Amino acid sequence: MNARAIVLFFAVTLAAQTPAPPNIAGFRPESARMQAGLEARFDQSVNRGNFQQWLKRLSAKPHHVGSPGSREVAEYIAAQFRDWGYETKIETYYPLFPTPKSRLLEMVAPQRFTARIEEPGVEGDETSGIKQDNLPVYHAYSTDGDVTGDLVYVNYGLPDDYRKLREMGIGVQGKIVLARYGASWRGIKPKVAAENGAIGCLIYSDPRDDGFFQGDVYPKGAWRPPHGAQRGSVMDMPVFPGDPLTPGLAATDPNRPPDPKQASTVTKIPVMPISYADAEPLLRALAGPVAPTDWRGALPLTYHVGPGPARVHLKLAFEWKLAPAYNVIARLTGSEKPDQWVLRGNHHDGWNFGAADPVSGMISVMEEARVVAELAKAGSRPKRTLIYMAWDGEEPALLGSTEWAEHHADELRKHAVAYVNTDGTSRGFVAAGGASVLELFASQTARDLTDPQTKASVLDRYIARRKVSRQEPEFQLPPLGSGSDYTVFQHHLGIPSINFSFGGEGGGGGVYHSNYDSYDYYVKFADADFQYVAATTKLGARMTLRLANADWIPFRFDATAKAVRVWTAEVIKLADDAREETRKKNEPISSGALKLSADPRKAYVMPEPEAEVPFLNLSPLRNASARLDKAVAALAKVDPAKLDAARLEALDAALRVAERKLTHAEGLPRRPWFKHVLHAPGFYTGYGVKTLPGVREAIEQRSWREAEEQAVHAARAIEAYADWIASAAAAAGN
Amino acid sequence: MNARAIVLFFAVTLAAQTPAPPNIAGFRPESARMQAGLEARFDQSVNRGNFQQWLKRLSAKPHHVGSPGSREVAEYIAAQFRDWGYETKIETYYPLFPTPKSRLLEMVAPQRFTARIEEPGVEGDETSGIKQDNLPVYHAYSTDGDVTGDLVYVNYGLPDDYRKLREMGIGVQGKIVLARYGASWRGIKPKVAAENGAIGCLIYSDPRDDGFFQGDVYPKGAWRPPHGAQRGSVMDMPVFPGDPLTPGLAATDPNRPPDPKQASTVTKIPVMPISYADAEPLLRALAGPVAPTDWRGALPLTYHVGPGPARVHLKLAFEWKLAPAYNVIARLTGSEKPDQWVLRGNHHDGWNFGAADPVSGMISVMEEARVVAELAKAGSRPKRTLIYMAWDGEEPALLGSTEWAEHHADELRKHAVAYVNTDGTSRGFVAAGGASVLELFASQTARDLTDPQTKASVLDRYIARRKVSRQEPEFQLPPLGSGSDYTVFQHHLGIPSINFSFGGEGGGGGVYHSNYDSYDYYVKFADADFQYVAATTKLGARMTLRLANADWIPFRFDATAKAVRVWTAEVIKLADDAREETRKKNEPISSGALKLSADPRKAYVMPEPEAEVPFLNLSPLRNASARLDKAVAALAKVDPAKLDAARLEALDAALRVAERKLTHAEGLPRRPWFKHVLHAPGFYTGYGVKTLPGVREAIEQRSWREAEEQAVHAARAIEAYADWIASAAAAAGN
Repeated sequence: MNARAIVLFFAVTLAAQTPAPPNIAGFRPESARMQAGLEARFDQSVNRGNFQQWLKRLSAKPHHVGSPGSREVAEYIAAQFRDWGYETKIETYYPLFPTPKSRLLEMVAPQRFTARIEEPGVEGDETSGIKQDNLPVYHAYSTDGDVTGDLVYVNYGLPDDYRKLREMGIGVQGKIVLARYGASWRGIKPKVAAENGAIGCLIYSDPRDDGFFQGDVYPKGAWRPPHGAQRGSVMDMPVFPGDPLTPGLAATDPNRPPDPKQASTVTKIPVMPISYADAEPLLRALAGPVAPTDWRGALPLTYHVGPGPARVHLKLAFEWKLAPAYNVIARLTGSEKPDQWVLRGNHHDGWNFGAADPVSGMISVMEEARVVAELAKAGSRPKRTLIYMAWDGEEPALLGSTEWAEHHADELRKHAVAYVNTDGTSRGFVAAGGASVLELFASQTARDLTDPQTKASVLDRYIARRKVSRQEPEFQLPPLGSGSDYTVFQHHLGIPSINFSFGGEGGGGGVYHSNYDSYDYYVKFADADFQYVAATTKLGARMTLRLANADWIPFRFDATAKAVRVWTAEVIKLADDAREETRKKNEPISSGALKLSADPRKAYVMPEPEAEVPFLNLSPLRNASARLDKAVAALAKVDPAKLDAARLEALDAALRVAERKLTHAEGLPRRPWFKHVLHAPGFYTGYGVKTLPGVREAIEQRSWREAEEQAVHAARAIEAYADWIASAAAAAGN
Repeated sequence: MNARAIVLFFAVTLAAQTPAPPNIAGFRPESARMQAGLEARFDQSVNRGNFQQWLKRLSAKPHHVGSPGSREVAEYIAAQFRDWGYETKIETYYPLFPTPKSRLLEMVAPQRFTARIEEPGVEGDETSGIKQDNLPVYHAYSTDGDVTGDLVYVNYGLPDDYRKLREMGIGVQGKIVLARYGASWRGIKPKVAAENGAIGCLIYSDPRDDGFFQGDVYPKGAWRPPHGAQRGSVMDMPVFPGDPLTPGLAATDPNRPPDPKQASTVTKIPVMPISYADAEPLLRALAGPVAPTDWRGALPLTYHVGPGPARVHLKLAFEWKLAPAYNVIARLTGSEKPDQWVLRGNHHDGWNFGAADPVSGMISVMEEARVVAELAKAGSRPKRTLIYMAWDGEEPALLGSTEWAEHHADELRKHAVAYVNTDGTSRGFVAAGGASVLELFASQTARDLTDPQTKASVLDRYIARRKVSRQEPEFQLPPLGSGSDYTVFQHHLGIPSINFSFGGEGGGGGVYHSNYDSYDYYVKFADADFQYVAATTKLGARMTLRLANADWIPFRFDATAKAVRVWTAEVIKLADDAREETRKKNEPISSGALKLSADPRKAYVMPEPEAEVPFLNLSPLRNASARLDKAVAALAKVDPAKLDAARLEALDAALRVAERKLTHAEGLPRRPWFKHVLHAPGFYTGYGVKTLPGVREAIEQRSWREAEEQAVHAARAIEAYADWIASAAAAAGN
């Protein structure tokens, strides 16, 4: 062996003995090595037996907000947290929450039929027959009403659907509309129906979308059975979530009058969900034009749009009261940085049994907290403070999380590092959304977790799927819309949030928000051996523990700068496309081609040409984006690992709260509660996110002046954010 | 009035008095003016009363080839033609034609069910109950067979469907397949099933494709009722149409042995069409994986692919005999150029009543011929010879037209100018396909006919529709595939052919090839007042009379040159795309991404990587295309209007037969009957056309060497064609 070989030999041997420390954002090499060890110990301590026991227990009876079941669940979870060593309390709020007093849906012409609107028990599902405290099929925050009218089928009930109906010569003024679930959050449907003059709204689950067309129905398969129906909120949450009587403030007073008339987010017209068994006779009784091809579902009939001769009577009365929402808040004070809070939440209330939604996620958080506490007792206490939250009242309107965060807004703005959310989870692939600054962070947690089925990393499996579907084979953290408890943190307070789950191989959405979302369903179809509940626990732990133990906060501002660049280009293109689309749409109207190509024997109302789209001044966004690019470039020159303690602390303190700068005190037009300028749930999509929402939605609604104003608003916030980062970088660089 | 004004006044006055002659290809201005006058007189003479009377009479009873009804129809039509003054004869051929002796389809497991395979009479449809001579639901040229096997649902039954099944781990060796109608000509399905090892094949009409999903079913609406089924031929016609015992030769001998074993185009496995009422219990009894989303139809069940537990027994026996096919051939000898033949045809046989298919087209031809004869008697005898043909046996295999044209091949190659075909027609838009040389000609006939509903021109309405659907707003004459009697003329003999119809607003395809294609259906849904049968008559007359009276043949070779350029570019791109597709498909296989993204709990057979695609030498096509461009450019310099009579006659004689040069004596690989190098029905699409078929299909089948060989073959024909045109141009120019 020559000298060179000897050196090589030792180098190789050394490398084999002490592997290179993992690359984890926010960690020095030595800390990263310790963190990896901690995570390995965490994984070994996860006990799948707990999942089975807790899932069964927490989904044993109905436990929606305000029910005895919800209180029992909250108290059980709180007791566990206390047991494990957390400072635990139940923080209770009193939002308005309606439950049905009476529900009637009947067809009065051309023949009589009374809808069953009830989900029968099924064999092999133990809880499906439980009637005690069972919330029947209904929509929370529908207004009371007693209406009779001709029925019109409106497809998914979105603005374009009504536009199409108008072209067929059909309006819905004074009519009751029948919409199918899908393509938007459900609450959009009654809102748009009312905007179009309808007096009532029914929403049914077409078997095309989540019934027999997709697969065998429950209990044989995972899909929605004929009488299954989807409960849910129809509150106008894109305006604001939480207690409809106290927007922006906490509902702490149990003695306020529970008056729905004071609640602007209650629907304008009565609305109720129905099953496809109940919808079929109504659809069969419709005449009028045949529905456009992509409006047709899987029921064995010709879909006509009406109006009538089907005429229906819908009568709904609700008990409006303030319900106690029990949030379990469990704290483990950080060993080094107690004033920096890492937030981790999942809701505990369900539409009745809610085994998948939310219990599968809730139990993954419980196991995470249990093991974290166990490791803390064994000497590995997290450096920052961890706060675990089990929210109540998520289902009706994100009640628990919204009221709590509104209550603690000032502290949160000051102390919160990030909020990590889960909800239901099941077998399959990781899916995540969140603030851009967390993209690399999230990618690394997925990189460092083994997929239980394939033994590849969770990230590799995610990438493999994107490769096969020919998407960019990169980890992506799309921005959050709404649909779970991160909403108030991300959009109202400007706290970087992340939401994740596993799924895609655990049955479909066929029992979502129904009585059949049960323990028996879950273990048969969703995650039989709790492998993915365990994966959720482990991925959640990587996120909370890395956020808690990092040497500096692992935010990557270049991702946000890139996102701003991309979204700015998108809204500019959106305006340009609108201009071109308008031209293309108007051309065959003004040339007469549209009229000439229409069947003269069919009713057809020619659309009016639309006003031309002006060229918009969106340059403030471009300038702001350029300023942010510059700030981020300056920051890239600062290596936190080389800063002295004081400078690092100063840099970290500044960057930790930078996201707050992206909120605007005035909020978005007509919905001031939503304060983030980069993203919000869509006004007409509900769950679906809109980026640069003030600008984008103004363009979509053809409000050109507002689009320019909003570009200025957004640009100011982005510039404040850029300047904040630039100052922090400059201070660290000196 | 000053001098300038006076001049203008006279100019305007003169223009008002004698309008500018219409621009009609092939006509000198004065001839065009006369032709326009002739067409105006033609239109005035069309008598819609005839349509009602003839439609009723010709669809009163079953009249398929070999039936007493067919003979009566042929004799009636012949008598009419004679009456109008045509030299008329019935030319009879004796092709092999099977009819069912016995048909049995039963499910033997997991429960028993016997298919009804019969179409009941329906109220309001007078003929639907007629049993006499009624051809039951069957597929002509299915082989005899008695098979029992597990059932597999194969979607449309095309090669890609079997590829998908293989990935699901499912083969069809020894199985009976259930395919649905659509996406290809029906005869492709049993062919591909047999290639994959299936022992039997059922083809049903899914209500998604032409039943209740599309609209109300007959008799309430125009769509296929539950027990309606689609008869039809399954002969392997992409190999050759016509009598299966005499490819390329006429079946003149009634005494040959009718032996199906000598017929290579009879199916390899038994096959039968069924209704969706008969298919539903079979589909419901299938287990195995759920069918891919786009395989699922509109029946109210979860579509599984099997195999089994549904097990079926299919027993079919046919009477194989030579049936007399009666072609009515009626001639009006041309006044100036009797040796130039303009051919005009439509078939007269139907699957039973066949009111739409073919009688609606047949009666439009009859009225055309009647008025043409009337005008001839009044002094406007066509200059060229007109031959009207009413074909028998189109439905089973284009029997009548193929045998007749094979019989008269030599005369036709010498005398034929063009063949104009129609088949069924109904309310709506013009649709046409044909040889590129006829594109401008066809466009001008549509330009010069008024649409009966909108009073715009037929061309303007066609253009309006393309504008609205954002296609190129130009008249297009796509090349012909197969599906009607033009096949032998265009593809076997190289006679420029055109096929047209009206449609798109006359009900759907819901009674196609069923007992419900009846008089009552037609007048209720297809063309209540025969406005579009009349439009078909008028458009047909414009075509035949312009071809007959033109000063020179109105072929435009620049259109063919353009088509050759486009198709050459297409096949080059096809090979390049195949290379890139192969790379993209192989990448996730070899990287393991495909395996990693698959659900490990579902059966999944990883596809093998495909061999890489070499770079092909397709330059012969490019060179040939360039040579054709040059020849056409030379021809463009010749103005026929300025030639003396002898030169014009020489030029015209050459160009009239130029299309023959595009045929190749050897024909296409494995199907020598198809001789045209520019287009053919697809080997795996049947009706659908393939351009440069030898090259294109070789690339599709990944036969790289054959693709290069076929490029040489096609290039030689194109060059011969180019040289022929160049010589003609040169001779005219000297």
